[in-house]
Amino acid sequence: MTIETIKSLWRKGVPVNNLFITGRSNWSAELLSHSGFDTLTIDMQHGLTEFSQLLSTLQGISSGDSVPFVRLNWNDPQEIMKALDYGAQALICPMIENASDAAAFVSAAKYPPLGKRSFGPIRAALKHQGNYFSDANKETLTFAMIETASAVEDLDAIAATPGLDGLYIGPFDLSVSLGLVKKADFSDANLLAIIDRVLALAKQHQLYTGIFTVDPLDAKAMALKGFQLISCGTEIQLLQNAAKKWLDQITS
Amino acid sequence: MTIETIKSLWRKGVPVNNLFITGRSNWSAELLSHSGFDTLTIDMQHGLTEFSQLLSTLQGISSGDSVPFVRLNWNDPQEIMKALDYGAQALICPMIENASDAAAFVSAAKYPPLGKRSFGPIRAALKHQGNYFSDANKETLTFAMIETASAVEDLDAIAATPGLDGLYIGPFDLSVSLGLVKKADFSDANLLAIIDRVLALAKQHQLYTGIFTVDPLDAKAMALKGFQLISCGTEIQLLQNAAKKWLDQITS
Amino acid sequence: MTIETIKSLWRKGVPVNNLFITGRSNWSAELLSHSGFDTLTIDMQHGLTEFSQLLSTLQGISSGDSVPFVRLNWNDPQEIMKALDYGAQALICPMIENASDAAAFVSAAKYPPLGKRSFGPIRAALKHQGNYFSDANKETLTFAMIETASAVEDLDAIAATPGLDGLYIGPFDLSVSLGLVKKADFSDANLLAIIDRVLALAKQHQLYTGIFTVDPLDAKAMALKGFQLISCGTEIQLLQNAAKKWLDQITS
Amino acid sequence: MTIETIKSLWRKGVPVNNLFITGRSNWSAELLSHSGFDTLTIDMQHGLTEFSQLLSTLQGISSGDSVPFVRLNWNDPQEIMKALDYGAQALICPMIENASDAAAFVSAAKYPPLGKRSFGPIRAALKHQGNYFSDANKETLTFAMIETASAVEDLDAIAATPGLDGLYIGPFDLSVSLGLVKKADFSDANLLAIIDRVLALAKQHQLYTGIFTVDPLDAKAMALKGFQLISCGTEIQLLQNAAKKWLDQITS
Amino acid sequence: MTIETIKSLWRKGVPVNNLFITGRSNWSAELLSHSGFDTLTIDMQHGLTEFSQLLSTLQGISSGDSVPFVRLNWNDPQEIMKALDYGAQALICPMIENASDAAAFVSAAKYPPLGKRSFGPIRAALKHQGNYFSDANKETLTFAMIETASAVEDLDAIAATPGLDGLYIGPFDLSVSLGLVKKADFSDANLLAIIDRVLALAKQHQLYTGIFTVDPLDAKAMALKGFQLISCGTEIQLLQNAAKKWLDQITS
Amino acid sequence: MTIETIKSLWRKGVPVNNLFITGRSNWSAELLSHSGFDTLTIDMQHGLTEFSQLLSTLQGISSGDSVPFVRLNWNDPQEIMKALDYGAQALICPMIENASDAAAFVSAAKYPPLGKRSFGPIRAALKHQGNYFSDANKETLTFAMIETASAVEDLDAIAATPGLDGLYIGPFDLSVSLGLVKKADFSDANLLAIIDRVLALAKQHQLYTGIFTVDPLDAKAMALKGFQLISCGTEIQLLQNAAKKWLDQITS
Repeated sequence: MTIETIKSLWRKGVPVNNLFITGRSNWSAELLSHSGFDTLTIDMQHGLTEFSQLLSTLQGISSGDSVPFVRLNWNDPQEIMKALDYGAQALICPMIENASDAAAFVSAAKYPPLGKRSFGPIRAALKHQGNYFSDANKETLTFAMIETASAVEDLDAIAATPGLDGLYIGPFDLSVSLGLVKKADFSDANLLAIIDRVLALAKQHQLYTGIFTVDPLDAKAMALKGFQLISCGTEIQLLQNAAKKWLDQITS
Repeated sequence: MTIETIKSLWRKGVPVNNLFITGRSNWSAELLSHSGFDTLTIDMQHGLTEFSQLLSTLQGISSGDSVPFVRLNWNDPQEIMKALDYGAQALICPMIENASDAAAFVSAAKYPPLGKRSFGPIRAALKHQGNYFSDANKETLTFAMIETASAVEDLDAIAATPGLDGLYIGPFDLSVSLGLVKKADFSDANLLAIIDRVLALAKQHQLYTGIFTVDPLDAKAMALKGFQLISCGTEIQLLQNAAKKWLDQITS
Repeated sequence: MTIETIKSLWRKGVPVNNLFITGRSNWSAELLSHSGFDTLTIDMQHGLTEFSQLLSTLQGISSGDSVPFVRLNWNDPQEIMKALDYGAQALICPMIENASDAAAFVSAAKYPPLGKRSFGPIRAALKHQGNYFSDANKETLTFAMIETASAVEDLDAIAATPGLDGLYIGPFDLSVSLGLVKKADFSDANLLAIIDRVLALAKQHQLYTGIFTVDPLDAKAMALKGFQLISCGTEIQLLQNAAKKWLDQITS
Repeated sequence: MTIETIKSLWRKGVPVNNLFITGRSNWSAELLSHSGFDTLTIDMQHGLTEFSQLLSTLQGISSGDSVPFVRLNWNDPQEIMKALDYGAQALICPMIENASDAAAFVSAAKYPPLGKRSFGPIRAALKHQGNYFSDANKETLTFAMIETASAVEDLDAIAATPGLDGLYIGPFDLSVSLGLVKKADFSDANLLAIIDRVLALAKQHQLYTGIFTVDPLDAKAMALKGFQLISCGTEIQLLQNAAKKWLDQITS
Repeated sequence: MTIETIKSLWRKGVPVNNLFITGRSNWSAELLSHSGFDTLTIDMQHGLTEFSQLLSTLQGISSGDSVPFVRLNWNDPQEIMKALDYGAQALICPMIENASDAAAFVSAAKYPPLGKRSFGPIRAALKHQGNYFSDANKETLTFAMIETASAVEDLDAIAATPGLDGLYIGPFDLSVSLGLVKKADFSDANLLAIIDRVLALAKQHQLYTGIFTVDPLDAKAMALKGFQLISCGTEIQLLQNAAKKWLDQITS
Repeated sequence: MTIETIKSLWRKGVPVNNLFITGRSNWSAELLSHSGFDTLTIDMQHGLTEFSQLLSTLQGISSGDSVPFVRLNWNDPQEIMKALDYGAQALICPMIENASDAAAFVSAAKYPPLGKRSFGPIRAALKHQGNYFSDANKETLTFAMIETASAVEDLDAIAATPGLDGLYIGPFDLSVSLGLVKKADFSDANLLAIIDRVLALAKQHQLYTGIFTVDPLDAKAMALKGFQLISCGTEIQLLQNAAKKWLDQITS
């Protein structure tokens, strides 16, 4: 699967599934890329993959079928440019608090004249057929994470950022930032109101939309609402839950 | 938990659970060592942990609660000695085909005068309180894998090997070696007969017993039969099954 | 030993020893964590441990008895958050030049509402019994390094930073910044005056105090003065000095 | 490209090119797998790839188009089984000195009843569509290296080894072993006589044939003679020669 | 060769050759350091060497004859200080857009009173005979990259930055930034005008000059123009071109 | 320093000092290679350096002044050949029990016609000026460890092994094997008798002699007796002792 396949699914209205990889293992990445996920997001913020591991983790994914996304550690131009040079097909940028943050993110991710990305796509061009420089701005996607109260305040302006490709909701940090008692509670009216506003703004500005969930039921609900990229937890959660269940079974 | 805890559970007749780690990740090892397993077996035969990774994988386990076992890649004296120097508390040796193999395994794993293990317990002594040299032969366990037709033929002599601590059945390779149609079918009479013989010989020679299973129901059945060390698959199988289930749920 | 043990020692007025790890080795970390140090500081500024090595270095320490501290490379929010997610129990932040730097450091290190730390404590929660989110702000300590002339100028305001847990003096960079001829000379009146001022301000604001020394005599003197965290050089200095002494002995 | 593509080319009489990877780099492996080579041989004997690097090196190759071969370090059953479990599609075994060596090589590389390979194809099965156990013996190839005087003496018996898939000539060690003055001189009558005998025996026993060359002219000559797998040096030689040429150009 | 040798060559008017290392391999670094290059630049911006690999890559170079330069990923003080502590002898800083950027670069790279570099030269001092603190500001060189339209606008002020050691032209990003149709076309009048201006300003301010080329003919032309540091592509380009040529030869 | 320097010192009757590196760190190796040791022995038997780390550890040593020796994990031809290809200048082979073991060791370490070493000196030739193939047998040294009762029994025949370069006494395993109560007690008459016999046989057969000690006084005594290579413990022991002493000083 390529990013073109993903965009084509989205054009047809088909939601795309996604798993966050938070551990550190090129082997797990390869295994999961052979396990039926449309896309895999290497989590460089709260996960254990550093740039030193990004190369082999991306190679593991490329050996299979999933399209590699990266959740950046920070809205830092050098990380943005490097993740793209390594071959990430989409970037999810955490802690976008306002339109200025969003503009800086896009500027670092896009080549001139749209932005200021420096040229040197060492691995990205390898996987690319054709003229990487002229195609890259279209073929690599930028998702701004909406996960703070301040981002919600500046949401209209963030959504209007020229060159931005999508909005991605992080309901855990958003709950923390809003001071909600329960984290990522998809029945919370405040959270739902923000979700609806993000969807509406995305439609208005022709942006892709994504959201992080941990429960398959929430995942399905969000797909029904119209989200295009549905993350449902991390491989670590899958493993921990499976281990717990196994131990419960054997001792019951 | 220490190997003494494990031996004390066995003296009380309590079976001990176990998971094989076949991927390569000091992080997964640490995570699983905080997940309730009594023991974890780092699989160096069909898994991806090489000696270069063994140090950090063992450190990951030591940071948590499980006792580290190692399934060797081969009955090779230099690997046996090194795995013990690194701090493995028990060794499961594959492809023991006869009493001579078993004697060689024990010889490499035990200090003189019982065997020929060379002295230099760089990490093992670190974790040990007291006189490692005089205690090591008792505190590190040797399990011979019974997984070939030839081992079954020489089972009496293998079980009588002086210094051997246990027998461990590998039902997959055993099924392959015996030419059984289904692999690791615990309702197969041939397999069950061997299982019973191993248990009887172990009782006669005061050996510990272990077996590899993948289904929790088989695991429970084997515990009821009297096995003391019950492996139930690998962390990779847990992850793959959980991923499949998640994808099934979201697309159903 | 846990951070609670350390804080309990401090409450009783017992100084706590510390060694900086400046080389890069999960093995040295584990070895030193079995060698009697109360705390070990992984030096990410002038040492060779990068985030790629931080995981296994922390695992090495966790396998033993010492409590892991991290000296950050920089006052950078993404590094602060990540070091805490990996499981550092205390952060020593270099190059705090004024109250604004100190406030930024604390903001990145503490969860809302006190600060802006993003939620996702992958390894830190693993080692934690209970509710990590609500306990973390108390259980992870922030030390601001006082090591520049400008920090000395703004010392009162730095010490008054809400949420800051401690002050840590770096006498080498401080000597360089002040233009002192000898580096880290604990008989220098200028240095001693700053030391006394730090101790007084710490008492006033209920902050912990720490200092870096290389000579055991200086270490003891600083403990007598009332410092609570006494670093005495690095493992590299221990090794280099021991090697030199050995060569001197053999050739004398 | 898959091993089936390679075999299909051979059935059509098309020689297949090959490059030895002797450095240690998953990146070089990926780069070369996007550079037009039909097959790449990871050299574990005289190269720098150890089993710890084999996983990521194979992932690098799998991310591109070449089929991964491995030249083993030794005719050692545990290495043979492990290289296959990691996903090597063909093994080139050095230092086969007689028919007994060849039989041991094949026995370790093939599942029962043909050989004694132990079951646990962790990565190999991942890349495989279908029933790995029943297909593996056909889909993984075994090449015996003919590179010693003793192998030449026992050549008829080596070629007759049941289950062996191919013969591969190592002209450098062969020259050394025969005491030839020039190494790998393809105009040497002794060497050519052995080459012809290998080709004839291969035809008789329906074995594939391969040979190592460093000069493209030799490579073309060997293809004309009928060799199916033509190695032409290593990536290190390519780089060294290119560096020398560049320096010559700039200083001329 | 040491940095003193390089400076001595420059004093005699001898241009110094250079190769960018963009892959990730301490082995390639060592190999190239034995291949006749005066200097090697580890590219941390568009290359695959992260700080985790910098140590072993520098060790590889130190084992041979070339002097190690580092092209930084970003004008970031913590990276600048760390690259110098690791032992880089010269830094090439990308994306210097104005005099303020240049001053920040120099400040982070030089010890007080010239700048604010923090003291702790863990590996740099190891390779140094004598008093590292007092010598370092002279023995480690700072090159500002001129590679954006804005840098060209502020060129006079950049060149006048106190403490800056050199100017280094990046013709690829410069072409992109200027909107030139062909990248790095050394016959382009706009590019040549900038080149001449850089050379003139360097002479005026006694700065060293460097430039990146990929064609040996361009390299020779730039040496004739007076550039002192002539980079001619990357080791990856050498390898790719050599592979292509080899495949062309064998199939022709 | 090169192996030629070492041999030249020995010809002049000057003993050469040596330290065992048992931890795993290319950094420690580089540091120690700048610390005044004539030779450093990477311990692959009871130390933590595996072949995956051997490359960077040797690079670390090559960046400094010491000559790199390797203590092999086992008398295994593939390890012997590989350690030499990586650039070890001398091999110390453990567990040589008789003349047949010694002959196998030498055969794997020497090129034809003296032995059967396979040709492909990837890194060794890099450091070598001239014709590696013809010089290697003289420039790489083979030391057989005398550390078992059986080796003592066959000592005359071991010492007479054609092509063997030296004998190296391992007093710890030797004490264990002989059943001595105290390990490596240099006042023990049994041990001293063996030491004298080794020295006499070495003189008779023109072999170099080496011995492992941990106490500088023992080291000096052994040098006086005529040993040429004097190992005095490991870098881990230096560090552990220095840490203990530091803690004693600060708490006294």
